[in-house]
Amino acid sequence: MSIAPTRLALSGSRFSVTYAIAADPATARSIADNVRVEQTIEFPLDLIADDDIRHGVVGRIEGFETFGPDLSHCTISYADETSAFELPQLLNVILGNASLFRGVKVVRFDLSDAVAAAFRGPRFGTSGLRRLFDRPAGPLFMSALKPQGLSAVELARQASAFAAGGLDIVKDDHGLANQSFSPFRERVTRCADAVREANARTGGRSLYAPMLSGPAERLIEDALFARDAGAGALLLAPALIGLDAARRIAELDVLALPILGHPALGGGFVLGAAHGFSHRAYFGQVMRLIGMDATIFPNFGGRFAFTRDECRAITRGCGEAMNGFAPILPSPGGGMTFAAVPEMARFYGDDILYLMGGELHRVGDLTDACLRLRDHAQAAMAKEPAE
Amino acid sequence: MSIAPTRLALSGSRFSVTYAIAADPATARSIADNVRVEQTIEFPLDLIADDDIRHGVVGRIEGFETFGPDLSHCTISYADETSAFELPQLLNVILGNASLFRGVKVVRFDLSDAVAAAFRGPRFGTSGLRRLFDRPAGPLFMSALKPQGLSAVELARQASAFAAGGLDIVKDDHGLANQSFSPFRERVTRCADAVREANARTGGRSLYAPMLSGPAERLIEDALFARDAGAGALLLAPALIGLDAARRIAELDVLALPILGHPALGGGFVLGAAHGFSHRAYFGQVMRLIGMDATIFPNFGGRFAFTRDECRAITRGCGEAMNGFAPILPSPGGGMTFAAVPEMARFYGDDILYLMGGELHRVGDLTDACLRLRDHAQAAMAKEPAE
Repeated sequence: MSIAPTRLALSGSRFSVTYAIAADPATARSIADNVRVEQTIEFPLDLIADDDIRHGVVGRIEGFETFGPDLSHCTISYADETSAFELPQLLNVILGNASLFRGVKVVRFDLSDAVAAAFRGPRFGTSGLRRLFDRPAGPLFMSALKPQGLSAVELARQASAFAAGGLDIVKDDHGLANQSFSPFRERVTRCADAVREANARTGGRSLYAPMLSGPAERLIEDALFARDAGAGALLLAPALIGLDAARRIAELDVLALPILGHPALGGGFVLGAAHGFSHRAYFGQVMRLIGMDATIFPNFGGRFAFTRDECRAITRGCGEAMNGFAPILPSPGGGMTFAAVPEMARFYGDDILYLMGGELHRVGDLTDACLRLRDHAQAAMAKEPAE
Repeated sequence: MSIAPTRLALSGSRFSVTYAIAADPATARSIADNVRVEQTIEFPLDLIADDDIRHGVVGRIEGFETFGPDLSHCTISYADETSAFELPQLLNVILGNASLFRGVKVVRFDLSDAVAAAFRGPRFGTSGLRRLFDRPAGPLFMSALKPQGLSAVELARQASAFAAGGLDIVKDDHGLANQSFSPFRERVTRCADAVREANARTGGRSLYAPMLSGPAERLIEDALFARDAGAGALLLAPALIGLDAARRIAELDVLALPILGHPALGGGFVLGAAHGFSHRAYFGQVMRLIGMDATIFPNFGGRFAFTRDECRAITRGCGEAMNGFAPILPSPGGGMTFAAVPEMARFYGDDILYLMGGELHRVGDLTDACLRLRDHAQAAMAKEPAE
């Protein structure tokens, strides 16, 4: 039974996705042709009439470029209406079923302004965070309260020392949830108090960012509790709680805190050489779309597997023009050492939120360690022009 | 500054995760040693005292087996308390940061009964679905309303024909969201009505399963609307709306509908040869943990890239013993043809929810097409003993 010819009131506005297709050029063209159908009607195209479904709803190949015997890029545009102007369905069109195709990877996407307008994007972004910390230039600094197993009292002691050391953000380790060791409400209250008291003593502006990973039933309640307790920012892992749950938190006007995106459970979105998202698209574009103000990722040379090129692509995704969404701060971490600072300063330049964890604890005193980190970075910046 | 020795009141109950590590045996041992630290304290182990954090909180290597020069399996146990008995943090311990390690993949996990008790699991599962459809044996059948772009009236016409053809489940295409073409509420109302009327005529028990992909703000409301409108099941894509959002819907007692898990956007969790989850763990164990009653995945030989071994692993994950969670129905689809039925019947045996989409539309009449599909499968079952 073929489908009745259909007339639709389409706006004509379209968004587009550029896919890297790992195949010889002819096969890549045929895969691109499958993708534009798969991501929209998922239906035999020959059963569709010469109508607005075929010419409007089905994706349209807008460009095709070959970069070698086994790699082509194909740009496909989709009618804005297919996205329903909602995140889950927008992601569904961009990569939903195609996430299951080997050899198809999202390089980047380009939203129409109409689709972008459905999203708030980063509330603070780089410039908003700089205003908040009164640091118009230079790098920003963050560390994490650890390890899991410590009591809220012990973690608050760390928080106090970090804030006294002038860290801009004192965040929970992403593994601090609502464990019996340091239950969420007690930890958040004690750590927020500790940071507030340290700020009062030093005149600093450190913010405490608790980890928000409670179950869906409790997310909003926990976020509001944290704000009321004095948390100045929130840490969440979009892949862990769901990209759309992260967006909801970030867009909540009643909350209005800076949000830091953590990469936990997100590896599958980016590690595939020929599936998922590019680092630029996921850690840059997707994180901005869902309203993260800073995006944490594993630095090159640490204990994870990101390369310099991937880290460069992330900073590009954080800063490039994107429908007026604010640029956001890249926050490389993951086994960061003092020795790595000069190279990081050269590589990332000014707009960076350094995330140093365990290494700070190797120094005798946490407050001294923070000061040393800042000195290190500033000395490196003075010496090294950005790449 | 090393960490103060810490005494904890740990229950002693632990859950475990088996990781495949793609490296030579010595390197694999060292990676396993990193993973057990990374997934818990993410902190230099040498700064931890000889205390309950080191011996209780940090993961413990329980087994290590080498399968060749570049592959070992390592089982690591974690204290129940690290999971906070909540899904996001449990997934965080199982794979959070390790998702960013190349060469580390979750083969399977084994929950303690105490952790498992924090989850409802599948409400219906295979046996509950069989009772619902009054089909104590034999395969079940499902198709999808498509393509996106049709009006709710046209989609309801399809739903009526499918139900008249005796399909057990008539689901939305996963790309039907809240687009202007067929807005969620109108579509759900019309399609549920159409299936109810067809059932009344034929005495059938078809269920209509609308796609639930609305944004986080509207998920619960949409689910309840669908139930009130007469939807008999729900379709959702856990990777798209978030695994924890999917769990919340499935666990909602006020809803209490069968839930079908769709793989959209989930490719990154499973496609990596050496990262993410195994097919068995993701499509079987994770889907059961979050309460899916059936798990949709791309069949071998279709337009996606799953192999026979991967599909076999999924059926194993759907049925194997798992803390008393009900077994669930594997639902292979993705370009399924009539010609594929005999081989699928042999491969999957009795416990299968066939998902056939576009191919049904190639037959002149949808109701006839459904009857032909059932005949085909039953003939194949009569001829072919299960593998």
